[in-house]
Amino acid sequence: MITARALDGLPIVRAGDDPAQLIAAAMPPGAPDAGDVLVVAHKLISKAEGRTRRLSEVRPGERARELAATLEKDPRHVQVVLDETRALRRAEHGVLIAETRHGFVCANAGVDASNAPDDDTVILLPDAPDDSARRLRAGLRELLGVAPAVLITDSFGRAWRHGQCDVAIGCAGLVPLEDWRGRADARGRELKATWIAIADELAAAADLARAKDALQPAILVSGAGRHVSAPDGPGVGPLLREPEADLFR
Amino acid sequence: MITARALDGLPIVRAGDDPAQLIAAAMPPGAPDAGDVLVVAHKLISKAEGRTRRLSEVRPGERARELAATLEKDPRHVQVVLDETRALRRAEHGVLIAETRHGFVCANAGVDASNAPDDDTVILLPDAPDDSARRLRAGLRELLGVAPAVLITDSFGRAWRHGQCDVAIGCAGLVPLEDWRGRADARGRELKATWIAIADELAAAADLARAKDALQPAILVSGAGRHVSAPDGPGVGPLLREPEADLFR
Repeated sequence: MITARALDGLPIVRAGDDPAQLIAAAMPPGAPDAGDVLVVAHKLISKAEGRTRRLSEVRPGERARELAATLEKDPRHVQVVLDETRALRRAEHGVLIAETRHGFVCANAGVDASNAPDDDTVILLPDAPDDSARRLRAGLRELLGVAPAVLITDSFGRAWRHGQCDVAIGCAGLVPLEDWRGRADARGRELKATWIAIADELAAAADLARAKDALQPAILVSGAGRHVSAPDGPGVGPLLREPEADLFR
Repeated sequence: MITARALDGLPIVRAGDDPAQLIAAAMPPGAPDAGDVLVVAHKLISKAEGRTRRLSEVRPGERARELAATLEKDPRHVQVVLDETRALRRAEHGVLIAETRHGFVCANAGVDASNAPDDDTVILLPDAPDDSARRLRAGLRELLGVAPAVLITDSFGRAWRHGQCDVAIGCAGLVPLEDWRGRADARGRELKATWIAIADELAAAADLARAKDALQPAILVSGAGRHVSAPDGPGVGPLLREPEADLFR
């Protein structure tokens, strides 16, 4: 059985805060178990790491101004998106689809104003989300004596389906993909293509356990211990298609 | 809190079986609650509905033979895929990405040999998965006096990420998208793009509760009652991008 429950009582996070201390203080009695997965919305991490920009301090360049005019967006916001972008995939219908410096393909390179501290601030993705996850896991181990796996998430749109699902953008102690290719189904027949994005399914499951307006950025998922590893492991890199293997560009 | 638990003891399903009877018999004591979501892997439904093809009875046409030669696939399997396809999006790297007659974009139009009853059989998607979900919900209401929401799922690959996640291909009694656009975040700031694919997140959460080789096609998810509706509602149609709105083609 899988359970996902939101941690209550987390404060508004400010630059310089230690996510491990905040989350350890919010952990329910008896939790976490070493087989649990702590799922954290990236904004908690980004704010703590100071990964924000003040729009009033951004000078949009020519390309940002051109795109902003076409897309009816704030040129300063577009400049911040471009600063986070390795390759722009699409700029249409008011949306910028960008490949971020990390290799994620998502709207606006993950730059977002919702749940920001004020109207002048936008929140970026963490600089190195796998490292952030490892630091948080190590901090929890130090404070609590036991470390769950840690998963950092964002909400991404999808190519052919409406709506967003939360997906993994960083992890530590989690095997992000479960590979059944070459293994057998219940009849003993080889499973040719079964390769499950466990980290993304965990991100989605955790998102169901919170309300978007309830300040519940941290969710504890239990029952997925077979995907948890003592070593921090590879992070989310294995989830990212290499551009040349990307059938869908 | 969200919980997802697999129903045990379901038999191998055969054409003509009634999914509602099989699932009602496997329901744990006291379950389901009217706010629960019963998540069923489509293969259970497809087998019961006889939505299978025998490869030995398929005569591949010229296009299927050409594609099969390029992709190193069985031309009969390719013919079945083409029969289920409204528009072929890609045929590369051994994979056919198809838009199915239902409007889903996925590998091989959802035609799959794993967990099939024998080596000559491939399993198709249900003909009308929303209708299948409605029938199952009505059957459970009749047998148990209470009907959970019903969600039918398949495992789909994603455009820019490795691995598959389970997604919704049919539903009844579930609001598939939660629309926060125009509503406020915790600070009272308008959420401009927050539109959550609840049905797909539920599919993903349920998939975590089973092992692919354990014959656990049915999962009961509790704690998501705010997304459950007494009317069967629109099905999964709202999740599908219209081709002309598809930024990513």
